[in-house]
Amino acid sequence: MITIAVDAMGGDHAPRSEVEGSVLAAQEYGVRVLLVGQPNVIRAELARHSPPTVPIEIVPASEVITMEDHPAQAFRRKKDSSVHVGARLVKDRVADGFVSAGNTGAVMTTAKFIMGTLSSVDRVALAAPFPNARGGVSVLLDVGANVDSKPEHLLQFGVMGEIYYRVTFGSRKPRVGLLSVGEEEIKGNELTRAVYDRLKALPVHFVGNVEGGDLFSGKVDVIVCDGFVGNIALKICEGLAMEVMKFLRKTYKSSFASQVGYLLSKGAMKGIRQTMDYSEYGGAPLLGVRGVCVIGHGRSNANAVKNAIRVAAGLARARINERIEQELSLTQVKA
Amino acid sequence: MITIAVDAMGGDHAPRSEVEGSVLAAQEYGVRVLLVGQPNVIRAELARHSPPTVPIEIVPASEVITMEDHPAQAFRRKKDSSVHVGARLVKDRVADGFVSAGNTGAVMTTAKFIMGTLSSVDRVALAAPFPNARGGVSVLLDVGANVDSKPEHLLQFGVMGEIYYRVTFGSRKPRVGLLSVGEEEIKGNELTRAVYDRLKALPVHFVGNVEGGDLFSGKVDVIVCDGFVGNIALKICEGLAMEVMKFLRKTYKSSFASQVGYLLSKGAMKGIRQTMDYSEYGGAPLLGVRGVCVIGHGRSNANAVKNAIRVAAGLARARINERIEQELSLTQVKA
Repeated sequence: MITIAVDAMGGDHAPRSEVEGSVLAAQEYGVRVLLVGQPNVIRAELARHSPPTVPIEIVPASEVITMEDHPAQAFRRKKDSSVHVGARLVKDRVADGFVSAGNTGAVMTTAKFIMGTLSSVDRVALAAPFPNARGGVSVLLDVGANVDSKPEHLLQFGVMGEIYYRVTFGSRKPRVGLLSVGEEEIKGNELTRAVYDRLKALPVHFVGNVEGGDLFSGKVDVIVCDGFVGNIALKICEGLAMEVMKFLRKTYKSSFASQVGYLLSKGAMKGIRQTMDYSEYGGAPLLGVRGVCVIGHGRSNANAVKNAIRVAAGLARARINERIEQELSLTQVKA
Repeated sequence: MITIAVDAMGGDHAPRSEVEGSVLAAQEYGVRVLLVGQPNVIRAELARHSPPTVPIEIVPASEVITMEDHPAQAFRRKKDSSVHVGARLVKDRVADGFVSAGNTGAVMTTAKFIMGTLSSVDRVALAAPFPNARGGVSVLLDVGANVDSKPEHLLQFGVMGEIYYRVTFGSRKPRVGLLSVGEEEIKGNELTRAVYDRLKALPVHFVGNVEGGDLFSGKVDVIVCDGFVGNIALKICEGLAMEVMKFLRKTYKSSFASQVGYLLSKGAMKGIRQTMDYSEYGGAPLLGVRGVCVIGHGRSNANAVKNAIRVAAGLARARINERIEQELSLTQVKA
């Protein structure tokens, strides 16, 4: 049975969403869940659910990392945080994967240092799944595990993202694109131009450069970029989705005070929020660490936590890291 | 009287929108307009408007640059295009500014080569105005005139963007931010970290790093980034706005077949499209060329063309290039 450690203390709605999502995942997916955090708090939440047949256990961790904590400091100073303990459970092979909706920077830093990096990988990458216009999912990586990247790093992102996509979204031959400022091969900056030909030579289905709008067009499944660009892209999407919702709310309230208008706007807004929220797609995996680590959005509700556990269990079951090591070792993409 | 040359052949709705927008601008702003393009086509459109008192003239140009034309090739091969002739009118001081809603790449390339670059400027920058959540406008630059930038280029973008903002949006002390992946000074890539301290030392009101979501938050007025990041950001916004509209249309049509639902969605969609469209804010000026050049979106309607003429006339009237030369010469930001 696959065992997933869940950070019960991270996320805006912790531990409620984390505990509820864990119970749902244990019921639906047949995984064993280790809830990591302050036992009394977790126990109180568990008392609200937990049919006796569900395999959920508590692993104590006394400290909590907040959204305000500085990632590197949180890693160094809070050695008994739920993030630290959860990552160690994976490192020690007690758990097959770790899920957290806490401070993304702190989870990335801690997972990287505690689990370590795969031998064929130079830089880990955070991969964010997005809904696209064709009703499918596109994955953007890296969305912020790194700031400055070498061509070799982007090549590794391409291979890792492709494997993650195959394993998680059931596509046999995902289309891989390189995020740039024009479709022609010569379009792009120094980095993307150095990557283009080498990505074409890799055993992935590389379809060429894509532009910003293709994050949503569904033209490609996996979109490769450096973490600086990817993080800005992700934050733009979140910011814009929020503004669109505010705008709709205002528009409807000002022009139609009626109940009908309000109900309409509520439905549409919920739809947009869900459509834009990568938690609905199982959170963002940190690829390249020696273990499985899936990071949910701080806003994660129980359903998002459940989905993240499902994705983490799927990555563990598929032995994603063995595949990454194998495929990358066949290529010459070490920096 | 300020004279603005307008590319009558560029844009998806040319020459209809260009001619109508020019007539409106001449009436409302007291500018003289030179409509550049194929005289017979322009004359036929003009016949639909043109009260005899409006100062509009036709300047012949036999060739048309399409959206499919390659920028550098269009510049080299179509020497009698409306873009070429329009840029030359500014170069020869027949016109005070040039407005085009045509092929953005071709207009940038042609304007840069024909008008030349200001002596204190290393790289020209395309500045895109966006609506923000506080009901104001934020400007992002560069959105695609360059791909790889040095720190000095970004510093020049900051100074040019600040002056453009002051002249166009009437703010005395616009807040300038640097687009990055976190607010702290140490956050960012090699480029932004090299820019941060030097931007702080310039005579602009630098408020620090901003994130992707701040394109819309209204926290800053001028957002500086390199053209690769800026172009991807712009395309994401356009793509996302389009998807949101499609999503709304589908949501309403599927759940409410009623006339009320459809009307509601139409109004909201139009609002979002207008809110996201920088043409509503007068197009995107190409800053740093020796002349005034404002580029509208291909979709520009008559109102967008009118606004672009207003902005171009305002920049010419304020002698923006003298200000840029003066302020940049006081700083040490030549590459």
